[in-house]
Amino acid sequence: MSLLDKLNWRYATKKFDENKKISPEQLDELLSAVQLAPSSAGLQAYRIIVVENPEIKQKLREAARGQQQLTTASHVIVFAAETNLDSEYVKNYIDRIAATRGVDRANLEAFEKNITHNINLMTEDVKIVWNHKQSYIALGVLLSAAADLGIDACPMEGFEAGSFDEILGLKALGLTTSVIAPIGFRAEDDHLSKAAKVRRPKEELFIHV
Amino acid sequence: MSLLDKLNWRYATKKFDENKKISPEQLDELLSAVQLAPSSAGLQAYRIIVVENPEIKQKLREAARGQQQLTTASHVIVFAAETNLDSEYVKNYIDRIAATRGVDRANLEAFEKNITHNINLMTEDVKIVWNHKQSYIALGVLLSAAADLGIDACPMEGFEAGSFDEILGLKALGLTTSVIAPIGFRAEDDHLSKAAKVRRPKEELFIHV
Repeated sequence: MSLLDKLNWRYATKKFDENKKISPEQLDELLSAVQLAPSSAGLQAYRIIVVENPEIKQKLREAARGQQQLTTASHVIVFAAETNLDSEYVKNYIDRIAATRGVDRANLEAFEKNITHNINLMTEDVKIVWNHKQSYIALGVLLSAAADLGIDACPMEGFEAGSFDEILGLKALGLTTSVIAPIGFRAEDDHLSKAAKVRRPKEELFIHV
Repeated sequence: MSLLDKLNWRYATKKFDENKKISPEQLDELLSAVQLAPSSAGLQAYRIIVVENPEIKQKLREAARGQQQLTTASHVIVFAAETNLDSEYVKNYIDRIAATRGVDRANLEAFEKNITHNINLMTEDVKIVWNHKQSYIALGVLLSAAADLGIDACPMEGFEAGSFDEILGLKALGLTTSVIAPIGFRAEDDHLSKAAKVRRPKEELFIHV
């Protein structure tokens, strides 16, 4: 299948087959793709919670208007933005660049100063929104990668972020929920899997200059 | 190449080969993938400006700290959020669902009311941020699809959104710039193409529950 066929195959799965689990190998491949998602300045100022525990999935479902995707899914992927993006976080990032690329850390100081300067210009609210946006890039990569691997997913915003933070203990980790995606394999009787895809027509969506 | 190989192949291209243009067929395939990007409630509350005109690219470059990606790229993709997401926009969307799926519009009224209700609860600022986030999903899909097609891209936030809006006449169209991605083919001498990818290690990025 071409990429377009795969993207046409995917849809926001409302009901997963509870008997079909994503294998550890499939999950690892999917998460490896998400790990490679780009982010502003490369900071990846988010973490990704992979929920397999049935009791936790049940609690999350209750904080997501009872939607069955949460418990029928093999795993629930929760993207959570860092709430403490500061000079220390940037320092660790620069250390990682130096180590990974085997470059002199001193040569990265201008880059470090630039990022830290930009971060310090932001209010806390602006910074959180910025980090949330980076989560959404990772979500886009997850959805593309899942389609490529034949894994179903349902991107969702319809949940109580505060309750998710509480259930998953995110506040203590300096995180807050951005967006989620239950993943697994579609149930036979999820009728939406047969519905035609609705998208803005090209002449309305794209402007050529 | 596997998807992971492709995602490892891609990088934020800082200099494109000015002599290599994306063919109309390649561009159409890439844009078709972006058209299929999911969005909250399926609204796709953004438009995508595809800039090929050299004079416009030059002006955009000046509004992006002079970064050469803007003019060396074959095309510059500008994601722009809708600023007038209202009940009329939702009505048109519901009309499109009814037409595409051949369903009775009356059966979609509850869905329409629900979306309109949620939109009316948002302040204008919250709504714009929401729409910007949807652009970022589309950006994630664009970057994945570009990697799949062997097209280089550089996701960028380092530009003056207000100037972009002005240069592209977006205000009159009810749009404001979210994020951009010059696309094309990497220049031989873009040394960053050889740099090792730096990412948070899995044990730091993922939390398994």
